[in-house]
Amino acid sequence: MTPTVFYFPIRGRAEPIRLALVAMGIEYEEQAVDYGEMKSALEKYPFAQCPRFVDEDGDISQSNTILRHIGRKHGLYGKGLKEAAEIDMLADGVEDIKRKYLSLIYTDQLAEEAKAAYWTAHFDPATTGGRNGGAHFAYLSHLVAKCGSGGWAVGGALSIADILLFDIVDVHQRAFGEDKFAAAYPNLAAVYKQVEAIPGVKAYLESPGRMAKVNGNGLG
Amino acid sequence: MTPTVFYFPIRGRAEPIRLALVAMGIEYEEQAVDYGEMKSALEKYPFAQCPRFVDEDGDISQSNTILRHIGRKHGLYGKGLKEAAEIDMLADGVEDIKRKYLSLIYTDQLAEEAKAAYWTAHFDPATTGGRNGGAHFAYLSHLVAKCGSGGWAVGGALSIADILLFDIVDVHQRAFGEDKFAAAYPNLAAVYKQVEAIPGVKAYLESPGRMAKVNGNGLG
Repeated sequence: MTPTVFYFPIRGRAEPIRLALVAMGIEYEEQAVDYGEMKSALEKYPFAQCPRFVDEDGDISQSNTILRHIGRKHGLYGKGLKEAAEIDMLADGVEDIKRKYLSLIYTDQLAEEAKAAYWTAHFDPATTGGRNGGAHFAYLSHLVAKCGSGGWAVGGALSIADILLFDIVDVHQRAFGEDKFAAAYPNLAAVYKQVEAIPGVKAYLESPGRMAKVNGNGLG
Repeated sequence: MTPTVFYFPIRGRAEPIRLALVAMGIEYEEQAVDYGEMKSALEKYPFAQCPRFVDEDGDISQSNTILRHIGRKHGLYGKGLKEAAEIDMLADGVEDIKRKYLSLIYTDQLAEEAKAAYWTAHFDPATTGGRNGGAHFAYLSHLVAKCGSGGWAVGGALSIADILLFDIVDVHQRAFGEDKFAAAYPNLAAVYKQVEAIPGVKAYLESPGRMAKVNGNGLG
């Protein structure tokens, strides 16, 4: 069966899933979500949320669960216990930043003052010792320097960690500027470039399948 | 080598790790964390946070990463892709509730008014369609009814999903009362009882290793 992504017509929480699929050359269908059904039909949407992903192995909710499933199934989860844990560490670290980013977009409406505070807490290489809830790009940069090789985040091959890094770098480059980001964290910008150059990803990014709208409220 | 858990002398984010280890009969050491080192030594604490877990396969941060590592290594991750995804779904669902709970404890100081609002948003079986950020016990209860068997959350055997459920039920029973919890979600209370009865868990819960302090500020 053709795997199906159920989501809204935005990048949002489904984008790393789409990126992992196109990186591996896996054809998939996109299905629009009925909001009322999503909020009430727990059989289909067990957390009253999407994305939802259906393939021959399951009917899955939770964006990171879906990505881990694709990673397990298609060899994007590293080699052995050590690499799997490094990939999970990066995934959890990206998730911590993602939640701060979503607050910046939805709660703080991407206001300039909030952006400045966000830069201080989560970007500025000098502020890792401050209160940031474990969410700081310096942490990701350090882990990639330690665990990666050949330009990949962990080990010497593409993994779901690279996919998640691509997406989190992408939305922050949009919000703060590509040059400013790359100047602060060149090794993360390099992972971004390497994922961007994967043939399936490159074709996807240039296609109409790459949705224009990043977040649900039009910001970002 | 003896696996080592580095954390503060509280249950907190390390408790599911300890529970998984004692459930499997794995001896481990507990090491107190130096706060200054934690905030500055990224080699040891890559997110300037703990828990940290060290065994012969790695030096790992992020509580859910550590638990997934133990799950992968000791057969607590289900059978096949479908069960692994179900376990991840429950893990991510517990994490969503955990973050609300930590706000209730640390931001809202477990105040009565905040507790009442929390019950409405995250417990009351009638409110799953409301705004709860995907964090509601009805979601977990429904998934356990769908995916579990023999009283376990997923498939017919102990997994890290049961461990996470035990811990999240435990802290909420403490905050809201065991009877009130069990009346609302009997199948989650049953998972709790089944994990509690595992010999290694039972012995641990009755030992001095089970720390008295639940959260860092003495609440909960």
